[in-house]
Amino acid sequence: MAMPEVFTELARRCNNWGRWGPNDEIGTLNLVTDAKVREAAALVRSGRRLALGIPLSLDGPQTGAIPGRINPVRTMLAINAPLTGDPTQFCSSDDIVTMGLQAGTHWDALAHVSYDNRLYNGYPADTITWAGAARCGIDKIRTLVSRGVLLDVARAKGVDRLPGGYAITAEDLDAAEELARVRVSPGDVVLLRTGQMQLFKQGDRVAYGVPSPGPSLGTVMWFRERDVAAVATDNLTFEVYPPEYDDLMLPVHLLHLVEMGMTQGQNFDLEELAEDCAADGQYAFLLDASPQPFVGALGTPVNPIVVK
Amino acid sequence: MAMPEVFTELARRCNNWGRWGPNDEIGTLNLVTDAKVREAAALVRSGRRLALGIPLSLDGPQTGAIPGRINPVRTMLAINAPLTGDPTQFCSSDDIVTMGLQAGTHWDALAHVSYDNRLYNGYPADTITWAGAARCGIDKIRTLVSRGVLLDVARAKGVDRLPGGYAITAEDLDAAEELARVRVSPGDVVLLRTGQMQLFKQGDRVAYGVPSPGPSLGTVMWFRERDVAAVATDNLTFEVYPPEYDDLMLPVHLLHLVEMGMTQGQNFDLEELAEDCAADGQYAFLLDASPQPFVGALGTPVNPIVVK
Amino acid sequence: MAMPEVFTELARRCNNWGRWGPNDEIGTLNLVTDAKVREAAALVRSGRRLALGIPLSLDGPQTGAIPGRINPVRTMLAINAPLTGDPTQFCSSDDIVTMGLQAGTHWDALAHVSYDNRLYNGYPADTITWAGAARCGIDKIRTLVSRGVLLDVARAKGVDRLPGGYAITAEDLDAAEELARVRVSPGDVVLLRTGQMQLFKQGDRVAYGVPSPGPSLGTVMWFRERDVAAVATDNLTFEVYPPEYDDLMLPVHLLHLVEMGMTQGQNFDLEELAEDCAADGQYAFLLDASPQPFVGALGTPVNPIVVK
Amino acid sequence: MAMPEVFTELARRCNNWGRWGPNDEIGTLNLVTDAKVREAAALVRSGRRLALGIPLSLDGPQTGAIPGRINPVRTMLAINAPLTGDPTQFCSSDDIVTMGLQAGTHWDALAHVSYDNRLYNGYPADTITWAGAARCGIDKIRTLVSRGVLLDVARAKGVDRLPGGYAITAEDLDAAEELARVRVSPGDVVLLRTGQMQLFKQGDRVAYGVPSPGPSLGTVMWFRERDVAAVATDNLTFEVYPPEYDDLMLPVHLLHLVEMGMTQGQNFDLEELAEDCAADGQYAFLLDASPQPFVGALGTPVNPIVVK
Repeated sequence: MAMPEVFTELARRCNNWGRWGPNDEIGTLNLVTDAKVREAAALVRSGRRLALGIPLSLDGPQTGAIPGRINPVRTMLAINAPLTGDPTQFCSSDDIVTMGLQAGTHWDALAHVSYDNRLYNGYPADTITWAGAARCGIDKIRTLVSRGVLLDVARAKGVDRLPGGYAITAEDLDAAEELARVRVSPGDVVLLRTGQMQLFKQGDRVAYGVPSPGPSLGTVMWFRERDVAAVATDNLTFEVYPPEYDDLMLPVHLLHLVEMGMTQGQNFDLEELAEDCAADGQYAFLLDASPQPFVGALGTPVNPIVVK
Repeated sequence: MAMPEVFTELARRCNNWGRWGPNDEIGTLNLVTDAKVREAAALVRSGRRLALGIPLSLDGPQTGAIPGRINPVRTMLAINAPLTGDPTQFCSSDDIVTMGLQAGTHWDALAHVSYDNRLYNGYPADTITWAGAARCGIDKIRTLVSRGVLLDVARAKGVDRLPGGYAITAEDLDAAEELARVRVSPGDVVLLRTGQMQLFKQGDRVAYGVPSPGPSLGTVMWFRERDVAAVATDNLTFEVYPPEYDDLMLPVHLLHLVEMGMTQGQNFDLEELAEDCAADGQYAFLLDASPQPFVGALGTPVNPIVVK
Repeated sequence: MAMPEVFTELARRCNNWGRWGPNDEIGTLNLVTDAKVREAAALVRSGRRLALGIPLSLDGPQTGAIPGRINPVRTMLAINAPLTGDPTQFCSSDDIVTMGLQAGTHWDALAHVSYDNRLYNGYPADTITWAGAARCGIDKIRTLVSRGVLLDVARAKGVDRLPGGYAITAEDLDAAEELARVRVSPGDVVLLRTGQMQLFKQGDRVAYGVPSPGPSLGTVMWFRERDVAAVATDNLTFEVYPPEYDDLMLPVHLLHLVEMGMTQGQNFDLEELAEDCAADGQYAFLLDASPQPFVGALGTPVNPIVVK
Repeated sequence: MAMPEVFTELARRCNNWGRWGPNDEIGTLNLVTDAKVREAAALVRSGRRLALGIPLSLDGPQTGAIPGRINPVRTMLAINAPLTGDPTQFCSSDDIVTMGLQAGTHWDALAHVSYDNRLYNGYPADTITWAGAARCGIDKIRTLVSRGVLLDVARAKGVDRLPGGYAITAEDLDAAEELARVRVSPGDVVLLRTGQMQLFKQGDRVAYGVPSPGPSLGTVMWFRERDVAAVATDNLTFEVYPPEYDDLMLPVHLLHLVEMGMTQGQNFDLEELAEDCAADGQYAFLLDASPQPFVGALGTPVNPIVVK
């Protein structure tokens, strides 16, 4: 079935295929320059660090709605096992984990979604096999360090948390940017706060999932025009859900990942960061959210670190 | 069996129990101050980034010698699965991994080793249960950002790679520090290069494992006196192996983790970094090697990021 | 807190500790004699076979209520991977599974439950470590072949399915035995049908779980006096749930496994078997429900096979 | 590359495609009739049971040579965890396993191998996807109960163990049949003993793997003409390895699974059974080796049970 015109028109306008050559596999992360990283490092004033990753455990946000994307099951391989048999000498404890790579705080690899048999930059979708993503896998991103900017849409709208299903608009981003007193510029990583994470932290992972506020079709060109390097949200679905159009499922995923080649993240805990930025008025900072180097992976757990 | 005096004497001298209070669970990471992080950020000159994590895949360094500590098995949960049933619309690909938390580039949690039923700070070893480490688990370390210093012992000794089983001495550290033209100071994270990683990168994981050069009993007080926050190596065993004394297994682990409360890392790929530091003469840099927030875990995979 | 007298009295009466010697680890399975197996084999008339295991997949009965006991996650390790690189020659497809051993149709090992630090036969509960069950693990049961007897309590009571929370009585077992026209005798394996499995097969795994009909305190001595070798049910909780007494959680588990040393099974699909037995009037048959030989395991998946 | 004629000629002769209709997915298991099972049950004389599954643990036969096919990693989800918080009341211990479905004693599903994009009965190989085998998966085999016949080739040749790389011939099968004093007939499951399992039981899993004795191209028509339902061996590679022809990898797999549709098993421990059969002279028996019902799986662990 053909995509509706509201989608195809946006796809045409935001498309970045070929912009960084026919062999590019990292898309808008090409916009992160050494100069941008120097700029980010220069923002470090107090030396304060904040971690944005949610705890990795069985109490994670997955409900089983996405088959097999399980919360981390971490078990012990050994507990104080004496290497020589003598417990007064060297003993060690080890563990093992099974988890969906997209289960907790994570980045989607560009190859995570496709449509009409295409990935970002026009690579065929069937370059993904049982062995993983031959193209646009998460391992193609060596580091993800840049200037981070918090766009606290909830605060800019004067609420603790946007209502479930709220479709964030370009005007909302403008307002959040104004609140931040920062101009988002090429290569920035935008952290987009909806406040939805509060539901997870209150222990209600079902409510946390759906309905969810999030970026809409109306924000796609905003990110494209500002040449943002990556965007992450504090919710499960990334974009607004249920979708704006009944016959257009998760279109923002397709426009960001496939058309723009813009890496996106989910389940970032932005609550403490939002308090911190409101308190000191500094909404731009050094951010390291580099992937774990899973070969051929479609996503990666990440513990994003802010240094201010 | 009682520990030999060479060990107990060192244990007494390097011990940090109680130094940061009876409830402390992160040990020498207390030495990473905001000022130290500001100092590290100020070292960023070019904006260049390097990633030190080895690839996460079945081709990892584990040989089966440590039961259950398996290299990452990453498999696909879905490949271009059409959400609506229509492949011209939204399709997604997901993956899942099972891996030993200490299988690749990783930090050992302080609780990773014990002897005589004691963990760091005197916590009973049986605070580790099937549920994980109630004390000194990796989740107690929220961030691990500091000034990193490369001590390239191999280069300082004029070799590509230290011989298997070579016991690094305090004098070797002095020489590497001199090469670096940096004075290691409280709160620094030391990256200790032996060159052993070359064996792994050449594809020989058996040779990579044992015998291995590494820090010895002779370097423990050096790290203690400099008040280093954490130490990581480019080998599998961390310390020299086979051990210096037949009846004293992995004593450096015990002195670092249990007595000093100093977090230690293994399998850091320091090859590219060593080339880079030799080229620009800058051996100190901003380092983010924050853990993944696994609740109660005995270790964590990490992709350490250097910014210069 | 001391156990209530209704429990301790039953515990005293049904206890089998020492009956098969101080080193016994299989309890009532000792009652399965060669003669009993000959008797069972002689019941084979038509040669018809029925399998009682429910499908092993993500659609299993686990809801997440028991942390970590996950439904099977089976993924592909390879899909038509050409061994020589040439797809016209040998290609192979492999898979891997992660699953709770008690997730689907399974036997509980005798060591699965304890109270007051005791397992069956008086073994200390702390003989179970991270390495598994040193005593009474599932691997101590080499084979589990015997005469199986279906006690179709639902049918005997004239209903399709016993109501949720119904506590089966000894009289109910008598009635089901009368329906079966079989006298349960030492060494038999009883398959106890409540009809609860219908809820699972209708796709409602939440309703399937709780509330559940099942054997009660009132049936314990019945099994003990008949010297049954093992009992399995067609529900998730095995015994009636919620429990008969608010302050006595899962007492039948404790009496069966710890006091009697009677292996018990759950999630057996008895629907087709019940139809078959009603049709031919043969409620006793050859049953093979031998464990998978997991070393030190606390349970085992099983696909019980009936031959009639 | 075209297959050599020695292969294509055999493929033509042994082919069973269409024999049980165009929709058949179980091949020669169609030959197991109720009458055959009655015949098998009638062989039960003593009631003695033997289990042929090797222990499931990290000490399994996998060496890492087949990527991801890992030996079972079984860990504890809970150890004597008190449900109410009170350890004098109900406590439970649970475990979880990750394992290759073809890691231990197992059956290959017919879909396990393909060539030239074809599975058994002509199904396209691409009916296997990330979701598993849509055709000829192990779940299509509901039960696998039949008369088992031990063909002890090693004993018939007067050796404890056939030499590594020995290619079993049709004459060897004749000799083993003569030793057994049984005529293999349609629907029988043949257990083929080479003695290779001794190497595994002696603790040498590398030697156990390769080189290995096993059935050769010369035995294919023997199994086809006798209309055997399934064949299992006591080695890792099933067929002789290294292969008879340098340019023909694992041809017996292809002929058995793809052309004949004959399910095959590996890593069956036939040592105790061989002793038993030699002692009582009874080489035919009731065998239950039914799969675990993994949905869409390419293989299944099995604990084959012999009743004599």
